[in-house]
Amino acid sequence: MTIIPVILSGGSGTRLWPASRSMYPKQLLPLTGDNTMLQQTAQRLNGMADKTNDCMVICNEAHRFLVAEQLRAIEQSAQVVLEPEGRNTAPAVALAAFLAAETDPDTLLLVMPADHVIDNVAAFQAAVAIGCEAATDGKLVTFGIVPTRPETGFGYVQATPDGGSAVAVKSFVEKPDRATAEAYVSGGEHFWNSGMFLFGAQTYLNALEKLAPDMFSACKESIRNRSDGDFVRPDSDSFLSSPKDSIDYAVMEKTDDALMVPMDAGWSDVGSWAALHDVRDSDGDGNTIDGDVYTHDCKGVFIQAESRLVTAVGLEDVVIVETKDSTLVVSKDKAQDVKAIVDQLNEQGRAETNLHRQVFRPWGSYDSLENQEGFQVKRLVVKPGAILSLQKHAHRAEHWVVVQGKARITKNEEEFDLGVNESTYIAIGDVHRIANPFDADAHIIEVQCGDYLGEDDIVRLEDNYGREGTNT
Amino acid sequence: MTIIPVILSGGSGTRLWPASRSMYPKQLLPLTGDNTMLQQTAQRLNGMADKTNDCMVICNEAHRFLVAEQLRAIEQSAQVVLEPEGRNTAPAVALAAFLAAETDPDTLLLVMPADHVIDNVAAFQAAVAIGCEAATDGKLVTFGIVPTRPETGFGYVQATPDGGSAVAVKSFVEKPDRATAEAYVSGGEHFWNSGMFLFGAQTYLNALEKLAPDMFSACKESIRNRSDGDFVRPDSDSFLSSPKDSIDYAVMEKTDDALMVPMDAGWSDVGSWAALHDVRDSDGDGNTIDGDVYTHDCKGVFIQAESRLVTAVGLEDVVIVETKDSTLVVSKDKAQDVKAIVDQLNEQGRAETNLHRQVFRPWGSYDSLENQEGFQVKRLVVKPGAILSLQKHAHRAEHWVVVQGKARITKNEEEFDLGVNESTYIAIGDVHRIANPFDADAHIIEVQCGDYLGEDDIVRLEDNYGREGTNT
Repeated sequence: MTIIPVILSGGSGTRLWPASRSMYPKQLLPLTGDNTMLQQTAQRLNGMADKTNDCMVICNEAHRFLVAEQLRAIEQSAQVVLEPEGRNTAPAVALAAFLAAETDPDTLLLVMPADHVIDNVAAFQAAVAIGCEAATDGKLVTFGIVPTRPETGFGYVQATPDGGSAVAVKSFVEKPDRATAEAYVSGGEHFWNSGMFLFGAQTYLNALEKLAPDMFSACKESIRNRSDGDFVRPDSDSFLSSPKDSIDYAVMEKTDDALMVPMDAGWSDVGSWAALHDVRDSDGDGNTIDGDVYTHDCKGVFIQAESRLVTAVGLEDVVIVETKDSTLVVSKDKAQDVKAIVDQLNEQGRAETNLHRQVFRPWGSYDSLENQEGFQVKRLVVKPGAILSLQKHAHRAEHWVVVQGKARITKNEEEFDLGVNESTYIAIGDVHRIANPFDADAHIIEVQCGDYLGEDDIVRLEDNYGREGTNT
Repeated sequence: MTIIPVILSGGSGTRLWPASRSMYPKQLLPLTGDNTMLQQTAQRLNGMADKTNDCMVICNEAHRFLVAEQLRAIEQSAQVVLEPEGRNTAPAVALAAFLAAETDPDTLLLVMPADHVIDNVAAFQAAVAIGCEAATDGKLVTFGIVPTRPETGFGYVQATPDGGSAVAVKSFVEKPDRATAEAYVSGGEHFWNSGMFLFGAQTYLNALEKLAPDMFSACKESIRNRSDGDFVRPDSDSFLSSPKDSIDYAVMEKTDDALMVPMDAGWSDVGSWAALHDVRDSDGDGNTIDGDVYTHDCKGVFIQAESRLVTAVGLEDVVIVETKDSTLVVSKDKAQDVKAIVDQLNEQGRAETNLHRQVFRPWGSYDSLENQEGFQVKRLVVKPGAILSLQKHAHRAEHWVVVQGKARITKNEEEFDLGVNESTYIAIGDVHRIANPFDADAHIIEVQCGDYLGEDDIVRLEDNYGREGTNT
C-alpha cells in the first residue's frame, strides 16, 4: 500500500490580499514559517511508513512555474496537473485518481487543500494512519476537525466519536447559525468539515462512476487525451464537459461507505488575516510583528512590513500589511471584509489584485522601481542557468546596467558578457536576449524609454519555456 | 506706517511625522491647500492697506533653500534670516526688529509662527487692523484666540474683552488642568495664547533693552556683525551669547504696555494629525482621503497616500499617512504620541526622521529608487538653469540615462548634451558635472556601482551654491 498527497491548489486567497494575489495566491506564500503553505502541505506526510516521495498537485496554468519551482526547492517529486478551468473539487480529484490508478489502483489518495495550516503534525499523521486502515478496506474517509469555537463560517460533519477511530458519518450539515454552532460545540457530535479526504484511487472512481457518471466519463476522457511534458495537461474540452461539484455533494453525502476520522491537530484554514494572526506567535501584548516595524502603545496588532518602515501608535486589534505596492489596514473583527476592497479594485481594473510589484517568471523575476510617462526603471533578476526569450520590442529602447553577478547578452549578431558596472543599450527593433550561464543570480537595472511600455510589446522569436509567439 | 510679517519658521513638527521631517518640517508642507503653511502665512496680510510686499522669515540654515524657493514661487520678496541656533522666540524677533529698525524704526512687526492655520483670513485681518492702532500708539499687542474647547495643551491669556478692541492683559497663565480649562472656556476671560504678536520694531527693542538687556545687546551685536548675501547671516558668537527666552516671558509678562486683541478666525496650531483632520473637509462619514485610497466601512478616518495604494477596512477614528519610505497608522486619540515613535527612530539613528526619500537640493532633487549592497538607483531632477557642482567620487561609478528633458554633461575635458534615451558613464575619479541650460526639468536615472555609496563620497571642485570643499 502506498499513500500519496493530492494537493488542491486552485484557490486565490482573496481575503489575504495584499499578500495574496490571484497570480501568486495564499498557498504559494510562506505565511507561517520558512516554507510556503504548498510546501508544508506536500511535506505533511513525511516520516510516515507508507509515504512515497511522490505527490500530485492540481493547480491552474498561471501558477505552474511557481508550483514547480517551490516543489523543486524542497526536492519533492510531483506530478503537476493543470486544470483547464476550475470545476470544483470532485472533478479535480477524479483527474488525480485516474492518473494514480494507471500505476496502481490501490494507491491511497490523501486529498488536502494547499492552503491550510496543521500545527500538530504528529496528531495529523496519527489520524491519517487510522484513516488508512479504513481506506484500505474500501471506505471513503473524511477528516472531521474537533471544533474549538462555535464557528459559523464552516460546514460540519455529524458523527458519534469512538476514541480516535473511524466512525460512520451520520450527516453533513451546512454552515449553522450562531446558536446551532454553539450547540454543536458543546454536543460533541459535530466536527468541522475540513475538506481533507482519504480513499483508494479505484474506490473513489467506482463511487464516482455510480454516483456521478457524467463527471466520471468526462474526467476519464480528459485524462486519456492528456498531453504530458513538464506538466500534465488533461484534455480541455472533455474536462469542461464535466459538471461542477464538490467531493462532499458528488460523493460523500451519497455513498454508504463514508467514514469520519476525528482530528485535533491545530488545524486552521487561515481564512483571513485575523485567522492567520491566531496561528502565529505573539508577544505579551498579543502583538505579532514582521519586518521593519515600530510600535507604541499597541495591543493585539498583527503588522507585516515587506519593503518599508511601518509604524503604529495606540492601536488595538488591527492588522497592517505592507507590500511593495500596497498597504492594507483592517480592524481584526472586519477581517473577512478585505474581499470588499479586492472587489472594488477589480471593478477598477487595478493590477494590484493580480500581480505583485515583483513579478515571477520561469527565468527569475522583475520588479518595477519607477514607472512614468515615457520611461520605466526595472530590476531584473536572472537565475543561474536561465535564458530569457530571444525577443524584440517595437516601441521601447532598453538600457541595461549589470549591478550584481554576470550576464551573457545577445544583441543582433553579437554575443558578449557583462559584469558588474558594465552596461549596454538595446535600440528599438534590436533582437536581444539575456542569459545567465554563470553560478550566481544576475541583477540588471533596466531603464526603458519609449512611447509605449506595456509588457505586451514583445515579439518572442525563441523561448526555452514554450512561450514563442505569445506576449505573456 | 508699514506692517511686515515676521515669520518664525524654526519648528520641526515632530508630531506630523512622517509627512514632516526635521529637514523638511511641517511649515514647509502644503497641509491644508495648494500652498505650504509658510506660503499661507506670508500671504495672510495680502489685501491690507498698510501691507508692503516685504516679509522676514527667521529659519535655520538647513531649510534656507526650501524657504527661499517657496517664497520665490509665490513672488514674495523676503529677507531670510538664518538663526545660528534656536534661542527661543524673543532673540529671534530681536534680530528682525534690529534689521527692520535700520530702515524705519516705526515699522510694525506682525510676529507669526510659520505653522499655524487661519481659516477666516478676513477675521484675522480685522483683528490685526485693531492691533495696528494700539501698536502705532506704542503698545505691545498679543492676539488671544477665543477658545472653542477646554484645551489643556495651550497657555492662556487673561483679559476682559470689550467687543473686539485691544484690552489690557491681566495675566498670562500656564497650561491648565481639565477643570480649570473648562472654567476658562465658560468664563469668557481667558484666551488661547497664540504666539502671534504685533508691535513697532523700536517699541520692542526699547522694551527688550529695559527688560532683557543681555539679550538686547547680544542680538544688537549679532546684527551689526552680520554678513548679507542671498541670506542674512547674523553673527553666530554674539547671538549664541544671548539668553534663551520666549517673547512672553522676556517681554510681555513684564511690560506695562501689553494689550490683547481677541481673535476668532478659525485658528489651529495643527499640532497633531488629529488637529489637522479637524481643519480639513471630510465626507458624510467624517472621512478625509488624499491620494490613491480605497476604504470600506470606515468612519472618522484621515488617510493620506503619497506614493502607493492604501486601503482601509472597518476602521474608526484612525489616521494613516503613507510616504515614499514610511507608513504611520495612529489612533486619533493617541495622535500626540507620534512623537514617541520619532524618539524611537532617532534613538536607532534612522534617517526617516530627518529626510524624505526625495531629497531637495538647490539644483532640484534626488530620490533613491533602490539601495542595495554594491549598487543604488536614483532619479535626479535638475531644474532649468541649475548647475550641479563640478565633482568626483572616490568609490563609485555612475551610469546616467536621461529619461525626460535634456542635460549638459561635463566629463573630464568633454562637454556634451544628452537627450531622452541617451546615456553616459562616469568612471570612478572622473571629474563631472550636470547642468540644465534648457527650458524644462531634466530627469536622469542614475545607477551607482561601488563599494561605498554614501552621499559624503564627493569632492566638490566648484559649486554655484557656495558648497565647495564640503560634502553636504
